[in-house]
Amino acid sequence: MIVVKVGGSAGIDYDAVCADIAARWKTGERLILVHGGSGETNRVAEALGHPPKFVTSPSGYTSRFTDRQTLEIFEMVYCGKMNKGIVERLQRLGVNAVGLSGLDGRILEGKHKDSVRAVENGKVKVLRGDHTGTVERVNTHLIDLLLAGGYLPVLTPPASSYDGVAINVDGDRAAAALAVALKADALLLLSNVPGLLRAYPDETSLIREIPAADVEHYLEFAQDRMKKKVLGAAEAVQGGVRRVIFGDARNGEPVSAALNGQGTVVS
Amino acid sequence: MIVVKVGGSAGIDYDAVCADIAARWKTGERLILVHGGSGETNRVAEALGHPPKFVTSPSGYTSRFTDRQTLEIFEMVYCGKMNKGIVERLQRLGVNAVGLSGLDGRILEGKHKDSVRAVENGKVKVLRGDHTGTVERVNTHLIDLLLAGGYLPVLTPPASSYDGVAINVDGDRAAAALAVALKADALLLLSNVPGLLRAYPDETSLIREIPAADVEHYLEFAQDRMKKKVLGAAEAVQGGVRRVIFGDARNGEPVSAALNGQGTVVS
Repeated sequence: MIVVKVGGSAGIDYDAVCADIAARWKTGERLILVHGGSGETNRVAEALGHPPKFVTSPSGYTSRFTDRQTLEIFEMVYCGKMNKGIVERLQRLGVNAVGLSGLDGRILEGKHKDSVRAVENGKVKVLRGDHTGTVERVNTHLIDLLLAGGYLPVLTPPASSYDGVAINVDGDRAAAALAVALKADALLLLSNVPGLLRAYPDETSLIREIPAADVEHYLEFAQDRMKKKVLGAAEAVQGGVRRVIFGDARNGEPVSAALNGQGTVVS
Repeated sequence: MIVVKVGGSAGIDYDAVCADIAARWKTGERLILVHGGSGETNRVAEALGHPPKFVTSPSGYTSRFTDRQTLEIFEMVYCGKMNKGIVERLQRLGVNAVGLSGLDGRILEGKHKDSVRAVENGKVKVLRGDHTGTVERVNTHLIDLLLAGGYLPVLTPPASSYDGVAINVDGDRAAAALAVALKADALLLLSNVPGLLRAYPDETSLIREIPAADVEHYLEFAQDRMKKKVLGAAEAVQGGVRRVIFGDARNGEPVSAALNGQGTVVS
């Protein structure tokens, strides 16, 4: 079992990702695809007159502030346009894909965080009305049912709170939680860079290998969204996933290339 | 098994529909919910600067002209905002709902109609680039799997063409095809009117009963979107569904009221 997470940033070639997944699926390999949609969500939110708001926590992590209206725009893009676009690509390639959010069958559950601490102009503020959280529990029953039935699951945030409220969760860490729960052989975190870079954005500074015991020490090289990927990788290896690979989803055969060791391999 | 279709027009009380469905589900009754999202799709399409375009066929049926951009907006609203909003309501009520489009698992399949004949200024024109079709085949495997696993399926257009392309299909007729394929005991078509009205919009002119053999004769009383409901009802009864009820989804217990015979009963 391989869990593939593909981001939602500019430059990602979803056609290439889906073609590669379809080819591998047809050989009998079992995969799950988790995707994002952040870039498109920002564009749609701007167009709808409710521009995105990002907050930075005191520990330096950036995340989307998700009020109710933002959550609905988020669902439109992640669960509507992105999810069904990917399912359609896979269906056209003859793969019987099924697109779901973490709300469906409560696949992904966690606590609803209504408030977030954010640094603004050097001061720490508390912002309320947030619909976010962290995946704490993965209910694998529905995924197992789909895989046993011959369906390829295509998953996306939001997740469900323990009370059934939709919460925005980080897609990389959600994929890590899925990989742990499903005892996946590998977790691929694919984005629009070749992997973790020692001197971002210099692509020749790619870090080729990270020892599993040492993942968190590499946080210092991670910029912005890459921080969550490194955190997700640490959580996955701590949870028993033997290989986590940061790979490039911009062209070629992104899944096969990553599994062949191109990118940053954590093992 | 009861198939409930709830429309996407103004005035529909989704909280009431979901509360009623949750209460019945918990008694062991098996239901499937099919929903629309037309009104909200129009609003979002306007806001995104790609206003909806409706065309009228030579035989008098009105439908949405669905170019690729419209299809993506349609998916955002139907599969994103509406579908996940309904799944969230049901999850909050303790029902383990799973939201899917007709593309997922190819539940709903039909031919892709790329061009549509439309009457404009009294002339019949052919418009190309349409992504529409009619459900011709229902693949019940995934629905059966979900129901057997204890999940309540929440379904929405689009459907899948035989080549895996997303196509906009009429939700009422899709629900009718589902009811036939699942050998449902009843099909409820709930909207923002009390049922089929002899003199629309006079709600006191409600037609209480229609003999199954006679459904198509009642097309003359149907305005606009109600025409597709009457057509769907005819298809369902011809396919062996014993009761089709046009009911009111604006308040109360919409599912229970319709099953108790409030509205227009076709049997």
